[in-house]
Amino acid sequence: MIIVADNLHVIDPGIAQALAKDDPEPVRQLVLHCARSGAQAIDINSGPLKRTPEKFAFLVQTVQGAVSLPLLLDTANADALGAGLAVCRSKAIINGFSLEPAKKETILPLAMEHGVDIIGYLLHPDSRVPIEAQEMMALAVELFEAYSRAGLPPERLIIDPVVAPMSWDSGIRHNQAVLSVIRNLPDLLGAPVRTIAGLSNLGSGPVSRQRKIQLECAYLPMLAASGLDMVLMNVLHAETLHLVRVCDALLSQKVFSWTELDPIGIAADP
Amino acid sequence: MIIVADNLHVIDPGIAQALAKDDPEPVRQLVLHCARSGAQAIDINSGPLKRTPEKFAFLVQTVQGAVSLPLLLDTANADALGAGLAVCRSKAIINGFSLEPAKKETILPLAMEHGVDIIGYLLHPDSRVPIEAQEMMALAVELFEAYSRAGLPPERLIIDPVVAPMSWDSGIRHNQAVLSVIRNLPDLLGAPVRTIAGLSNLGSGPVSRQRKIQLECAYLPMLAASGLDMVLMNVLHAETLHLVRVCDALLSQKVFSWTELDPIGIAADP
Repeated sequence: MIIVADNLHVIDPGIAQALAKDDPEPVRQLVLHCARSGAQAIDINSGPLKRTPEKFAFLVQTVQGAVSLPLLLDTANADALGAGLAVCRSKAIINGFSLEPAKKETILPLAMEHGVDIIGYLLHPDSRVPIEAQEMMALAVELFEAYSRAGLPPERLIIDPVVAPMSWDSGIRHNQAVLSVIRNLPDLLGAPVRTIAGLSNLGSGPVSRQRKIQLECAYLPMLAASGLDMVLMNVLHAETLHLVRVCDALLSQKVFSWTELDPIGIAADP
Repeated sequence: MIIVADNLHVIDPGIAQALAKDDPEPVRQLVLHCARSGAQAIDINSGPLKRTPEKFAFLVQTVQGAVSLPLLLDTANADALGAGLAVCRSKAIINGFSLEPAKKETILPLAMEHGVDIIGYLLHPDSRVPIEAQEMMALAVELFEAYSRAGLPPERLIIDPVVAPMSWDSGIRHNQAVLSVIRNLPDLLGAPVRTIAGLSNLGSGPVSRQRKIQLECAYLPMLAASGLDMVLMNVLHAETLHLVRVCDALLSQKVFSWTELDPIGIAADP
């Protein structure tokens, strides 16, 4: 699985303050910390930014100045997204669009224009979150069709089935459906479509760090075994991050020998 | 998932010594510890016992004198098994039989005679361990047929796809196949057959406790999401044991609310 850090978001008070002062340093430090921790891509979450296009471009430039990792440009504001894509020299992934008409109309063309990958959320056109697997699968088909109609090659689409907070009444049912959708998408769409899931969603709300990690550590291997390609997560949760590597080893298609597993620390003792 | 302790085995030096002296106390203490830790059933592993039938019956009597949990009578020795079943007042499960001719002939009839559940291993008749899922599925069909031919009702069969040590060259491939077999067995057999897997097998060999637990904690949620019914494990691995409960909550078919998750410690903070 590719590990995408979700740590950089504008609602973080330190980041908000840095942005207000146009100070790149706290953003640089955070992103370097994420990269050193094991992030393989960085999600730049604009949140409810004011003066959005300039600030978002500033974030993109700051991050690509600090690390040479792919960037997920995570904003629903098409102007901000356009400004970010215009300055982005790193590999960019748009995060993302859904069947919401405004998003289809404004976000999808940017993927075409810039020739980049784009994440599509399994949400109803009115932004309602589906609960059952069948609902999600129908949305995936619609999303795939919208994507193809926009002239984009299917291998550039990444589907995000939207992990639900466990605090929702339907959270457990929803997240079970997510597992089955990830497993069945390639058969359903007749194409090997990539998937991404946001692990931090699970523990949204007033949940301690320890319990967030317990939830993440139980659900992550289930996602991995379903065939998840990219995990969007708090890369400063060291336990969860290490588990990604153990899952990758357990699910590897290569023939490992015991000693080859050594580098990821699950084989013979030191 | 039902948690079955694999902690009681005769190769444990303390247990071996207790048996040599016919001293029930170390066995009692171990089993009580397992029960307090969260075991919901106890596997009594006879290992290579001498004077087997008497000693095995002694173990069964000692364990059922200490805890009122179901017992898995884990021996390949039909005489020992018969002696154990004869004295067993707890719910008993035979662990187990395979397509090995001697086991089919001697072990299977005991399940019929005593009207108990029995575990069947997915092993070739010559005891070779299958690697590919298709091989395992073919063995499951044969096992199911052998079981039915012996006149036993299918709902009494529990299939053990035999988790492989990660130290084996084919361990990774084998254990991936195990996940797919557990998921597909009900469809294949056209009946809801229960499954059990031995988690401790993963870390067999010269592996530290920490690494054993890392492997267990990555693989257990995968097994759980595949639909595993019973997990045979070291119940003194507290991290793994807690994870069973979190997995059960994530995969529950009931509609939980956030607060109902409290008792298992994954919901709101104290």
